[in-house]
Amino acid sequence: MFNRSDLLIVSAAVVAIGAAGVTRYAHLGDVTAFGCAALAVALLASLVGRSVEQLGERLGSGGTGVLQSALGNLPELFIGFFALKAGLTSVVQASIIGSMLANLLLVLGAAFLVGGLKHGSQKFDSAQIRMTMVLLLLATAALVMPAIAHGLHAPVSQHEKPLSIVISVVLLAIFALSLPASLKRRASTDPVPAGHEPPRWPLWLAVSVLAGASVAAALVSDWFVHALEPAMGTLHISPAFAGLVIVAIAGNAIENVVGIQLAARNQMDFAVSVIINSPLQIALLMAPMLVLLSLFTATTLTLVFTPLLVAAVLLTVLTVAIAMLDGESNWLEGAVMIALYAIIATMFWWG
Amino acid sequence: MFNRSDLLIVSAAVVAIGAAGVTRYAHLGDVTAFGCAALAVALLASLVGRSVEQLGERLGSGGTGVLQSALGNLPELFIGFFALKAGLTSVVQASIIGSMLANLLLVLGAAFLVGGLKHGSQKFDSAQIRMTMVLLLLATAALVMPAIAHGLHAPVSQHEKPLSIVISVVLLAIFALSLPASLKRRASTDPVPAGHEPPRWPLWLAVSVLAGASVAAALVSDWFVHALEPAMGTLHISPAFAGLVIVAIAGNAIENVVGIQLAARNQMDFAVSVIINSPLQIALLMAPMLVLLSLFTATTLTLVFTPLLVAAVLLTVLTVAIAMLDGESNWLEGAVMIALYAIIATMFWWG
Amino acid sequence: MFNRSDLLIVSAAVVAIGAAGVTRYAHLGDVTAFGCAALAVALLASLVGRSVEQLGERLGSGGTGVLQSALGNLPELFIGFFALKAGLTSVVQASIIGSMLANLLLVLGAAFLVGGLKHGSQKFDSAQIRMTMVLLLLATAALVMPAIAHGLHAPVSQHEKPLSIVISVVLLAIFALSLPASLKRRASTDPVPAGHEPPRWPLWLAVSVLAGASVAAALVSDWFVHALEPAMGTLHISPAFAGLVIVAIAGNAIENVVGIQLAARNQMDFAVSVIINSPLQIALLMAPMLVLLSLFTATTLTLVFTPLLVAAVLLTVLTVAIAMLDGESNWLEGAVMIALYAIIATMFWWG
Repeated sequence: MFNRSDLLIVSAAVVAIGAAGVTRYAHLGDVTAFGCAALAVALLASLVGRSVEQLGERLGSGGTGVLQSALGNLPELFIGFFALKAGLTSVVQASIIGSMLANLLLVLGAAFLVGGLKHGSQKFDSAQIRMTMVLLLLATAALVMPAIAHGLHAPVSQHEKPLSIVISVVLLAIFALSLPASLKRRASTDPVPAGHEPPRWPLWLAVSVLAGASVAAALVSDWFVHALEPAMGTLHISPAFAGLVIVAIAGNAIENVVGIQLAARNQMDFAVSVIINSPLQIALLMAPMLVLLSLFTATTLTLVFTPLLVAAVLLTVLTVAIAMLDGESNWLEGAVMIALYAIIATMFWWG
Repeated sequence: MFNRSDLLIVSAAVVAIGAAGVTRYAHLGDVTAFGCAALAVALLASLVGRSVEQLGERLGSGGTGVLQSALGNLPELFIGFFALKAGLTSVVQASIIGSMLANLLLVLGAAFLVGGLKHGSQKFDSAQIRMTMVLLLLATAALVMPAIAHGLHAPVSQHEKPLSIVISVVLLAIFALSLPASLKRRASTDPVPAGHEPPRWPLWLAVSVLAGASVAAALVSDWFVHALEPAMGTLHISPAFAGLVIVAIAGNAIENVVGIQLAARNQMDFAVSVIINSPLQIALLMAPMLVLLSLFTATTLTLVFTPLLVAAVLLTVLTVAIAMLDGESNWLEGAVMIALYAIIATMFWWG
Repeated sequence: MFNRSDLLIVSAAVVAIGAAGVTRYAHLGDVTAFGCAALAVALLASLVGRSVEQLGERLGSGGTGVLQSALGNLPELFIGFFALKAGLTSVVQASIIGSMLANLLLVLGAAFLVGGLKHGSQKFDSAQIRMTMVLLLLATAALVMPAIAHGLHAPVSQHEKPLSIVISVVLLAIFALSLPASLKRRASTDPVPAGHEPPRWPLWLAVSVLAGASVAAALVSDWFVHALEPAMGTLHISPAFAGLVIVAIAGNAIENVVGIQLAARNQMDFAVSVIINSPLQIALLMAPMLVLLSLFTATTLTLVFTPLLVAAVLLTVLTVAIAMLDGESNWLEGAVMIALYAIIATMFWWG
């Protein structure tokens, strides 16, 4: 059943949803409404992740991967979809790249920092991590290719929509192909790692929490997007910064706090694996889903990210991939990664 | 003497050359003529490679390297030279980069895919592969430097021809310097790998096939280039796409099919070595030779590739280098590499 | 006390300083004056490095790191400061990147070349080297971010000065954070390496040489910068080339010749560590110090390097990082690195 930390999150989520609802309809100011909605979204994202984990452990470790992939990104997908409906294309584009950056620099950097301060230099050396990074590199190269071609090869400019759709289908196909391997890998390589607990929640509770949190996430995502635009105006935040930092962290990065906890417990292989799987899923699943979903809205989402987004994600993925191959981390590397994230985020402040 | 597969290729080549000749002079349609010439070129390239291999094994394993380097790229060089004579500079430039991409993404990806499906995760970990990748990275950086400077540093623009010549001489010098090491390396590290056969062809046959195939390649390359321009017009293919995909695959990639066969036989070190040596030779030998040869034609070939070609080759070389250092491959990585090749090729469709 | 090589450098420095003084005030021609000053600066930089080393060994190996960081870059800092006072911003920017390139390609390449010719393939595999490369990658990404944003994200252009200051403070903070680790690391991992000598100079001599060389370096740096502009005019050297090659080599690279000597003695871990620590200090200490020092001059130094400088340093750092992870070097790699340096330098000849 619920332990203390579960209870804390559930009750905080209920309070935040309530506050978000009240501020939304009572017109208590744009920024307050936005803050409450952001908090509620982040808590629901974390709750969806937690229930998927509990459910997955019931179903056997193989099922977790599929479930996490299919449902773990649900809150982010809701936000993206409502933002597209509201015509906030540049927010959505920035949030896709921002989610990748936040995980690869901020969350991974925090994991290295916290883990390194507690345990000194830490090693991680699983073949799975190296393979995930190689796939992430290749997937990122594919993802940003339309933007590169747009900037460097004029004739492509007239064909961006079909190009983005085709690449999205290719990326989704790669994701589908990767599922069986991912299932098998988890089943074989995760033989109940040290410190791993048996499922605490009975099946009915896991399903209920998942269903409840998902429905609530859909609702609150709408409020979040609705409050985003006026809040951006009041706080003078550019769409690029809002997407890159705020939406990315609320919708995606918070749920990966578990990775930092694992690093603190010195389970580095597991920690790194959880954290870098997230940007891979964004490139292979989230981004293409949003492109295809945009076909059902009035707005068209293409993969033509702005040049600075492309430069930031390529530089980050290449740098982090090389840092991963090195197979060691320490707190200083973590601190520099967080600093790099802050520097990149600052660049987008002026939009 | 000839085994079944030899006979198959020789007879297919003879038929293709005949068809190419008939379609060339009987004016049976541009596309047919071009298709026959492309097939004949690819088969001759494969035949030249095979006879060099047989000859090399006669001469001792040391000689193979020199011979392969000197003669293995002959068909490609012929095509490049005739294309330069025909003034098709952008086709030649795209074919240089395209040959590198085709080997690094398409052929290597196919090797990973086929090998991985048959044998699961495959390891390759020779120091030679890592060194070849480092050399390839450095050589590629040198190769694209004039194009980068052209785009980013205006004063260079007036000095592109002398700059390209100087860099070509430097690259050829590096190639010459690398030959002794390459000979010694092969002699010591290839102690008749498992599954390696003794030479089947007597010396006279190897020499005859090599001479015959080379002469025929020179002849057919001329037809190929001659048919290229009208075929591009009829099929609405841009010069960049023709060079990047069609010329690159016909002139270079087909002969590396042997790498895929080696991967299927689980000889990964050997397979990867064969495949990634090819782009290194293109950067150190082919590209500079064509630049210098262009001095004897009315057309000037510089190393100022178009920006998208530069971005594509840099991103590919960096990504594949990191994937190589990881020392492991599987079918999924291979599939993503092939997908990335298809995506890059698509970008150049609109020229 | 002084051994032969010490005496040689001290007397050469005295002669060079004398010649630089004479040519400076006797107006014996711009180029001669510049040549003498450049030689004097290089010799003084080498002397400062040597006295810091001797002093450091007196203070215990822990102290050496701090001293080297704080004082080893002194001559370069003087040149940069005087050049800023003279308004030579583009010379200073080019010299920052040029010092990184000279160390990563020219000095490291020479170490690989010399070591490889003497000892064949050499291995280096310390965790410290890999960590330094990862930090260098991250620091370089942070360092060039304003330039990337300037080129790709128009709104940033109006905020370059505050942005450069903030990033400089962040980089200096990272440098400060890295000092304790660097001290501890040296203390534990350098247990008097083979071929390492006890301090030859008594304390008073080391302090005197350091003080004398530093004062002289300040003086001669002024002459050097004073002679730089007319010499650039007479020799038709662009500011970018002067900074990238001449200032970088005179002020920084010469002192790292010790790395080449270590490689020749087959102490590769030590050699590579010394050489790649230098660009890291430039990114974390020199560059931000110069930005902050420029606040006290009429000239403003920002981190908005020209696009070709950014491309050159990113390509170099990524390539060398991958080559370092490989953990092996040979003379051919070294030769290609030197060739790449020469090619990059050539690009800046036309400014």
